Amino acid sequence: MSNTRECLQLLQLVTNAELKESPVYVPMHPFEELNEQEVKHIDSGLSPSEQVQQAINCLPLPSQKIVNGLKPSFRRWTIMDYSKAYSSGEITPCMVAEQLVTAIRESSSPPMDMAFFINYDAEDILRQAKESTRRYERGEPISALDGVPIAIKDEIDCRPYPTTGGTKWLHKFRSCKGDACCVMRLRSCGAVIIGKTNMHELGAGTSGINPHYGATRNPYNPGMISGGSSSGSAAVVAAGLCPVALGVDGGGSVRMPAALCGVVGFKPTFGRVPHSGVLPLNWTVGMVGVLAGTIEDAFIVYAAINGPLPSHETSAIPLPKVYFPLLQSTNSVSNVILARYGEWFSDCGDDIRTCCSQALHQLSEKFGWKTVDVTIPDIESMRLAHYLTIGSECTAGLSSYLEKLDNAESGWDLRVALCVYGSFSGEEYIKAQKLRSRQMQFHRNIFTKADVIVTPTVGVTAYPIFDDALKTGELDYINGAALVRYQIAGNFLGLPAVTVPVGYDKNGLPIGLQFIGRPWSEPTLIHIAYAMQTLCVSKYRKPQVFYDLLQKD
Amino acid sequence: MSNTRECLQLLQLVTNAELKESPVYVPMHPFEELNEQEVKHIDSGLSPSEQVQQAINCLPLPSQKIVNGLKPSFRRWTIMDYSKAYSSGEITPCMVAEQLVTAIRESSSPPMDMAFFINYDAEDILRQAKESTRRYERGEPISALDGVPIAIKDEIDCRPYPTTGGTKWLHKFRSCKGDACCVMRLRSCGAVIIGKTNMHELGAGTSGINPHYGATRNPYNPGMISGGSSSGSAAVVAAGLCPVALGVDGGGSVRMPAALCGVVGFKPTFGRVPHSGVLPLNWTVGMVGVLAGTIEDAFIVYAAINGPLPSHETSAIPLPKVYFPLLQSTNSVSNVILARYGEWFSDCGDDIRTCCSQALHQLSEKFGWKTVDVTIPDIESMRLAHYLTIGSECTAGLSSYLEKLDNAESGWDLRVALCVYGSFSGEEYIKAQKLRSRQMQFHRNIFTKADVIVTPTVGVTAYPIFDDALKTGELDYINGAALVRYQIAGNFLGLPAVTVPVGYDKNGLPIGLQFIGRPWSEPTLIHIAYAMQTLCVSKYRKPQVFYDLLQKD
Repeated sequence: MSNTRECLQLLQLVTNAELKESPVYVPMHPFEELNEQEVKHIDSGLSPSEQVQQAINCLPLPSQKIVNGLKPSFRRWTIMDYSKAYSSGEITPCMVAEQLVTAIRESSSPPMDMAFFINYDAEDILRQAKESTRRYERGEPISALDGVPIAIKDEIDCRPYPTTGGTKWLHKFRSCKGDACCVMRLRSCGAVIIGKTNMHELGAGTSGINPHYGATRNPYNPGMISGGSSSGSAAVVAAGLCPVALGVDGGGSVRMPAALCGVVGFKPTFGRVPHSGVLPLNWTVGMVGVLAGTIEDAFIVYAAINGPLPSHETSAIPLPKVYFPLLQSTNSVSNVILARYGEWFSDCGDDIRTCCSQALHQLSEKFGWKTVDVTIPDIESMRLAHYLTIGSECTAGLSSYLEKLDNAESGWDLRVALCVYGSFSGEEYIKAQKLRSRQMQFHRNIFTKADVIVTPTVGVTAYPIFDDALKTGELDYINGAALVRYQIAGNFLGLPAVTVPVGYDKNGLPIGLQFIGRPWSEPTLIHIAYAMQTLCVSKYRKPQVFYDLLQKD
Repeated sequence: MSNTRECLQLLQLVTNAELKESPVYVPMHPFEELNEQEVKHIDSGLSPSEQVQQAINCLPLPSQKIVNGLKPSFRRWTIMDYSKAYSSGEITPCMVAEQLVTAIRESSSPPMDMAFFINYDAEDILRQAKESTRRYERGEPISALDGVPIAIKDEIDCRPYPTTGGTKWLHKFRSCKGDACCVMRLRSCGAVIIGKTNMHELGAGTSGINPHYGATRNPYNPGMISGGSSSGSAAVVAAGLCPVALGVDGGGSVRMPAALCGVVGFKPTFGRVPHSGVLPLNWTVGMVGVLAGTIEDAFIVYAAINGPLPSHETSAIPLPKVYFPLLQSTNSVSNVILARYGEWFSDCGDDIRTCCSQALHQLSEKFGWKTVDVTIPDIESMRLAHYLTIGSECTAGLSSYLEKLDNAESGWDLRVALCVYGSFSGEEYIKAQKLRSRQMQFHRNIFTKADVIVTPTVGVTAYPIFDDALKTGELDYINGAALVRYQIAGNFLGLPAVTVPVGYDKNGLPIGLQFIGRPWSEPTLIHIAYAMQTLCVSKYRKPQVFYDLLQKD
C-alpha cells in the first residue's frame, strides 16, 4: 500500500475524485423485510442458549445428511457431534480437554511450531471442561455448545488472557477488563474457551506472518501461510482443534484465512454482532465473524452471538429482526439469482478460476439457480477508500497507546502501515465516505437484479512462508492485493458474506468461493452456502496437520 | 484559529485526547416522544402551504397581542400584517415590490452601501409580485406567505441567481441548477423571493465582512458589523426589507447575526429541514435556519420548510413526528426548567451579562419557571472538534472547485482558513467525532435535569468595521471567539436553538438571549422564545436604517 504506485492511485482515485455524493460514515443499513424463502422468525429477547436451540431446530435432519448422493470424503467433528458424544456419555468434555491441551502443546512446539495461539492456559481449559462435564453428569447441559471447544482471536477481550492484538506492547497499556460481549454469550452457552489465537500484528496484513508470535502455518501444508489477519482462528478449525473459532473481519480478515485453510468463514451484516470488547482498530468496517468446519456450525455460533447489546442505548436505528434459515428445506429454495462479475473470475489463479466456475456451474445445474453477469465499477477506488478509512480509524482508536510505543517493538510491516495510516487528511477521510455512499448505490442496483454476488474468495491460494519474513514480518503487495481483492464490499458497505471451501489447487491447497448478500440477508446466504457445501463434501480432504479429539482410544 | 495558541490547544485538546468513546459521525438523534406541553400533532404528508395554515392556527389570538400589559415600543411588519393588508386589498404585492426594489437600490448604493445583497433582480421580483397580486385579485392566495418578500442567503440555490457562497469564483465552476428544496417550498406557498443575501466568504468567518461584496452593515449602526456568516439575511430583516430570510447555520451563522442585528434566529434540529440544494460546505453540522422579526414569523416559515424530502430514500432513521406549539396557550406552559451555565454569563460583555440575566429573571418571575445551574465540561475541546469537522467537511465538499481556485480571488481570511481546514488528519477527524459522542452524553445528562439551556447568544455586541478590513477581509480572533462561544452545541450536536432579542447595550446595539433545546423539541423552544419576546417587546427599538414597506403614502 505504501509503494509509489499505490500512493499515486490513492491520489488519483480518492483525493482528486469529483464526488457529488453525501458521505456515508457508518454502513448501518435500515432493516428491511426481505421476504426470504424458507426462513423462520426468531423472537427478540431470547437468550444465547435459546437462540442456539432455535438454530439447531433449523438444521438438516440426520436423514438428509447425504444430498445428491454425495458422501463426505472427509469431515471434521461438528458441534452436534460433540453434543451427541457428550450427551451419550461416551466421551466427556474433560477427555476432550485433555487431548486438546496435549495437541495444542505439540502443535505449538518444535518441530511443528504451527503458531496457532498467542496464549492458552491449560488449567483454565481443564477447569471449564470439568464444569461442563459436571453439567452433563447432572443431565443439565446448557446448550448444544456446552463443552464444545472454541478459540478466540487475540483481538477480542477474553478472560483470563491479555488482548495483544498480535503485538508485544498493546496489552501493556490497555488491560483486558473482562469478556467481550460475544465471548460472554458463548460462555453462557457452556462453550469451553481454549485460548487466544494468533493474528497478523494489529490486523494490518493478510499473510498471518507475525514476527512476535510466529507465522501461523497452514494445516494443509505447514510450509505455507494460513492467511490473515484471523490466521490462528482459521488454522485451529482446519486442524480439528475446535469446530469453531471467532475472528474479526475488517478487510476480509475472517474470509481470507478461512479460504486459505479450507474452512467456512462467515461475516454477518454490520451491526448484527456487538463490537463491544473488540480492540478499537476500526469502527465502521470491522465485524466479529465465525470460522467453522461447516456452515451449520457457523450458523449455530452466529445464533449464539448475534443480537443487540443487553444495555443497548436508545438507538436511532430500529433493531433488525432475526430470521433463521430452515436448512431442512434448502432444496426448496428456488429462483436464486447469483451475480457474477466476470473480471473477478479472470484475475485469479488458474486453478481458482476453474474450481470456482465449476462450483458455480454445479449450483445452477443441481438447484436450477441462475447466474447473471454484472459490472461493479470503481472497485480500485473502493479498496483505497476502505484502506484510508481503516487506517485512519486504527490510528485514532489506538492513538493513546501508539504514542507510548517504541517502534522497535513492532514488525517492519506494521511500522510501514502505521506511517501510511497516519498520513491521510480529514478531507480524504470524508471523500472516502463519499465513495462509500457511491458504492452503496452501485451495490443496491446489483441487488435489484440478484440475490447474492458470487466471487472467488481470494485470488491466490496459500503461498510459501519464507524464512526471512519470520523475524521481521513481510510486505508482499502482489499477493496481498490478490488476497484482498474480493473482500472489500463486505467491510466497507457492511454487507454479509460467507466463504465455503469448494476444492483444491494442483498442490492440494484449499480454494474458497464467496457469496456476498444484501444487508440482513444472512438466512439466504446460509442457505446458499449450505447448498454449495452439499455439492462439495465429496471433494473434501484431510489436512496434513489434523487432530481427532473425539476419538476413543 | 490559525494562530499558535489555537493550534497548540487543538493539539492538546483534540489530537492528544484519550477518548474511549466510539465516534458519532452524524448528529442524527432518534426521534422520541417528548410529551411537550401545549402542542398539536401535525399529520405527515401535508403540503408546505397546508403546514403554514396549521402554524397560523397555532398563533396567539389578536386579543392576546398585549401580554402582561407590555405594549411593543417598536414593531416590524409581520407575515400576518402582509397577509391581512393584501387580503383586504389596501395594499398589493406589486406595491410592496416596487417600494422594495427602490429600497434595495438605495441601500445598496453610496452613500449607504449597506451590502445587504450579493444579487437581486428587480424584474424577477416584480414578476413574482405581479403573479401574487393576480392571485389575490382572484381571491385565491396560496397561503399567508403569498406575496410576502423573503430573502435567501447566497449559500442556498435559488433561481435565477448563481450561488456564490460569498466568493468571486465558486459559481464559475458550480452552476446553480434550480431551487433548493427549502426555496421550492417557500415558492409553493407564494412567497416572493427577493434576492441572494450577502454572507461571510464561504461561511468561514463570523463578522460578515466580505472583501468582494462589501461588509454587511448593521441597521442599528451602519458603522458596525452585522455578524455572520448569514450577515445579509439578518440585516435585511432588521432593516424591514422583508419579515423573514433564510440562512444556514454551520457554527452559529444564523444565530450570531440575528443577535447582533436584533432579530430572531431559529435553527431547527439536525435533519428537520432538507439540506438539498445548499452548498456542500458541511454535511454534519450545517442546517438551514430562519431569521425573522418575530418568533411567530420564524415559526411560520419553519412550518413551510420542515419535513423530509419528497423523494426521501429509505432511511435507517424513522422520520421524526412534527408537533407545533399552541402559542395561544404559552401562558399555560408550566414547570419549565432552564439550565444556566454560570461561566457563560460571566465571560461576556457587562451589558450582555446584565441584560441577559435580567431577561432570565423576568422569565422566572412572570412564568414561574425555574433556573438550575449546570456545568458543561470540555467546551473548548468541543469548539475545536467542531472547527476541525467543519474545516474538513468544507475542504472535502469543495475540493473539485478549490483546485481550480486562483488564491488571488479569495480574501485573506479565507486563504488562511483554507490552509488550516486542509491541515487536519483523518485520525484527528475521527477523534473529533469521538468528542462529539462524549459531548452528546454530557448534554443528554443536562436534559435529564432541564428543558433548555439558556445562554447569551454572543459574548460581544456588534463591533466597528475598520476601513482596512474592507478590501482584504479580517481575522479577529478575540471577537470571533466571543461571537462563537455559545453556538457550538447547536451545530456539533444537532440541537435546536433560537435567539430572541432581549435588549440593547449602552450604545444601542442589540443583545440576544439563546435557548438550546433537546433534539426535536422545537415546540418547547418556540413557546419559550415567545414567552421571552412578550416580556421584551416594550424595549424594542427602531434601527437607524429602516424601511416601512406597508406604509400607504
